Amino acid sequence: MSAAIRFEVRARDGAARAGMLVTAHGEIATPAFMPVGTRAAVKAISPGELWAMGYRLVLANAYHLALRPGGKLVHELGGVARFMGFKGATLTDSGGYQAMSLAKINSIGEEGIVFRSHLDGSRLALTPETAVRIQEQLGADIMMSLDECTPYPADHARAKASMELTARWARRGLEARQSTTQALFGIIQGGVYSDLRRASAGQITAMPFDGFAAGGLSVGEPKPAMLEMAALSAAAMPAAAPRYLMGVGTPADLIACVAMGYDLFDCVLPTRNARNGGAFTSEGRLSIKHSRYLRDQRPLDPRCECRTCASFSRAYLRHLYVSGEILAARALTEHNLFFYSRLMRNAQAAIASRSYGAFAKALAAEILEAPDQTKDDVV
Amino acid sequence: MSAAIRFEVRARDGAARAGMLVTAHGEIATPAFMPVGTRAAVKAISPGELWAMGYRLVLANAYHLALRPGGKLVHELGGVARFMGFKGATLTDSGGYQAMSLAKINSIGEEGIVFRSHLDGSRLALTPETAVRIQEQLGADIMMSLDECTPYPADHARAKASMELTARWARRGLEARQSTTQALFGIIQGGVYSDLRRASAGQITAMPFDGFAAGGLSVGEPKPAMLEMAALSAAAMPAAAPRYLMGVGTPADLIACVAMGYDLFDCVLPTRNARNGGAFTSEGRLSIKHSRYLRDQRPLDPRCECRTCASFSRAYLRHLYVSGEILAARALTEHNLFFYSRLMRNAQAAIASRSYGAFAKALAAEILEAPDQTKDDVV
Repeated sequence: MSAAIRFEVRARDGAARAGMLVTAHGEIATPAFMPVGTRAAVKAISPGELWAMGYRLVLANAYHLALRPGGKLVHELGGVARFMGFKGATLTDSGGYQAMSLAKINSIGEEGIVFRSHLDGSRLALTPETAVRIQEQLGADIMMSLDECTPYPADHARAKASMELTARWARRGLEARQSTTQALFGIIQGGVYSDLRRASAGQITAMPFDGFAAGGLSVGEPKPAMLEMAALSAAAMPAAAPRYLMGVGTPADLIACVAMGYDLFDCVLPTRNARNGGAFTSEGRLSIKHSRYLRDQRPLDPRCECRTCASFSRAYLRHLYVSGEILAARALTEHNLFFYSRLMRNAQAAIASRSYGAFAKALAAEILEAPDQTKDDVV
Repeated sequence: MSAAIRFEVRARDGAARAGMLVTAHGEIATPAFMPVGTRAAVKAISPGELWAMGYRLVLANAYHLALRPGGKLVHELGGVARFMGFKGATLTDSGGYQAMSLAKINSIGEEGIVFRSHLDGSRLALTPETAVRIQEQLGADIMMSLDECTPYPADHARAKASMELTARWARRGLEARQSTTQALFGIIQGGVYSDLRRASAGQITAMPFDGFAAGGLSVGEPKPAMLEMAALSAAAMPAAAPRYLMGVGTPADLIACVAMGYDLFDCVLPTRNARNGGAFTSEGRLSIKHSRYLRDQRPLDPRCECRTCASFSRAYLRHLYVSGEILAARALTEHNLFFYSRLMRNAQAAIASRSYGAFAKALAAEILEAPDQTKDDVV
């Protein structure tokens, strides 16, 4: 481990822990959810609003930023946090996920991933070494090792080969790393196979990373498999380092995985759902386009204290959404990110007061009982 | 005139005047620019942000709101200001402009305008009477009489017929009006013909409207014709009532037309330009997509105190714009509306201190000297 970040567990409740992650760009209370700002912008939301909602750590993507505006330019402009005007810390994903999500435009070999840019067809070679170098240019507080994100489904042999490749890439990334102020996290793969997950955890955690992540989950596998693999991966990670569950998930997923001992999360769900008219509320999920909200004067969530709920009725939000107004995306995104921020703050408090079990149970009941109002959409 | 609004001229400098417009939803210092919130939303901006920038009067559109969500629904939900969560006052345009801008989907007769909805093809008949009734439902502080917005070009006979029809509709609208809390403004037409403008002004100002507007300008005619017709119309309006120049314009237009004695303005320019990457600055207009801003760390306007200029570099704004991020539209719209708000505040102060001539001259020089950096766009 380097001295790039410091992580301190301050309270435990079962496997769940509440802590403090100290970076060059400030402290992050954990467990924490990171809003996804792929291209150095969380869609529809300003950095000042993220800060006001309590977010101190935002995720950006090295692949996307390498293509535009380029790692070198972001470096010249002071790094990704300064570039986007965010006062807090940043984490960059390496681009391994894009090798899967943009599978049609790349090829993977022992050396790394060769992308054809989704923007202009130009060639971008992402090796374990260049992935680290680009992230060092981007200047994020936490960099992610280049991995091969094993797709789902993948048979055992395919998942094993992918996991072995990820381990070799992890070693090369560590060797290539030069920054002493940026942390580097290793990523555990292994698909949905317990033996491979355990083996991958053994390989990755044996290397001197500053933190560890479980990758390759929430990529289409059944929920029980996701939860089983996440639990298995967490249990195999050292207790002293921060644990990051990548790409997960729903409020229920976060609550379940905090209980496993994860400290960091990211997911496009609150922001992407918002742009599609979906809102998370204490009464379940709702889809604002539904005609039942046509004359509904209540806020999205009567128990929410966000600006959207203080300002706008469901009827107005529905009008904005069906009219295609940008303000609909803004208002719903802010509400959903506020919901996620509060969820994590409450989780931290519950762990500190050793009442996480009761907290999780109450929330799970609430979420289970609440009707999912996104199912029978009628515009 | 009704008692729906009160208007007081507090200072004069030449024909220019600074005043206060008192409505049921608060006071508006004039001359004032109204942001355009066609569908009860100013694109990309929240009502709270409009308020924070000093806007106390916002424009919405009766035709668009009648189609969706409907005048009756907006009435049920407390009127357009309450519906959109705006603490200030509102003005609704009647839909006469849409008869021109959406000419392919409507037909005009003595009785009124019959629209085929641009949304679903359904029929909407807008007569002078229904235009007032819909606006009474919408509950705006200022309603606009239904007019036929004379297109450009139109020959003398066509412009004359249009102007006569507008006068007959104005009379019918006044007769149909029931609200005692909402003002009703009459609209002067007459195309680009001095004799028709004078005749129209004579017809419309002879009727007991609460305020008067010059319509049918900024519809494609040459700038000198616009300015001549605007001046002519203003001079023919009574001094005691508020004067509204519809759909105008650029910062230079506003400065010129305030000097003619106009009190109210609206235009899509600051908001639409923003969404297309255009910014108004004290150094002229710039187009943020230009490659010259690729590594430009300065704010949009070094002399601007808006949130966008306090937070974001041109390089970042360019990145947001070329990446298609919603935040680009937000940030540029806020900057442009801040620019317009400050421009009008400065105009008010200059009139109050009887230095409007010098103020206008300095601004005109600044605008003329500044290079228009929107011409040679290279992305």
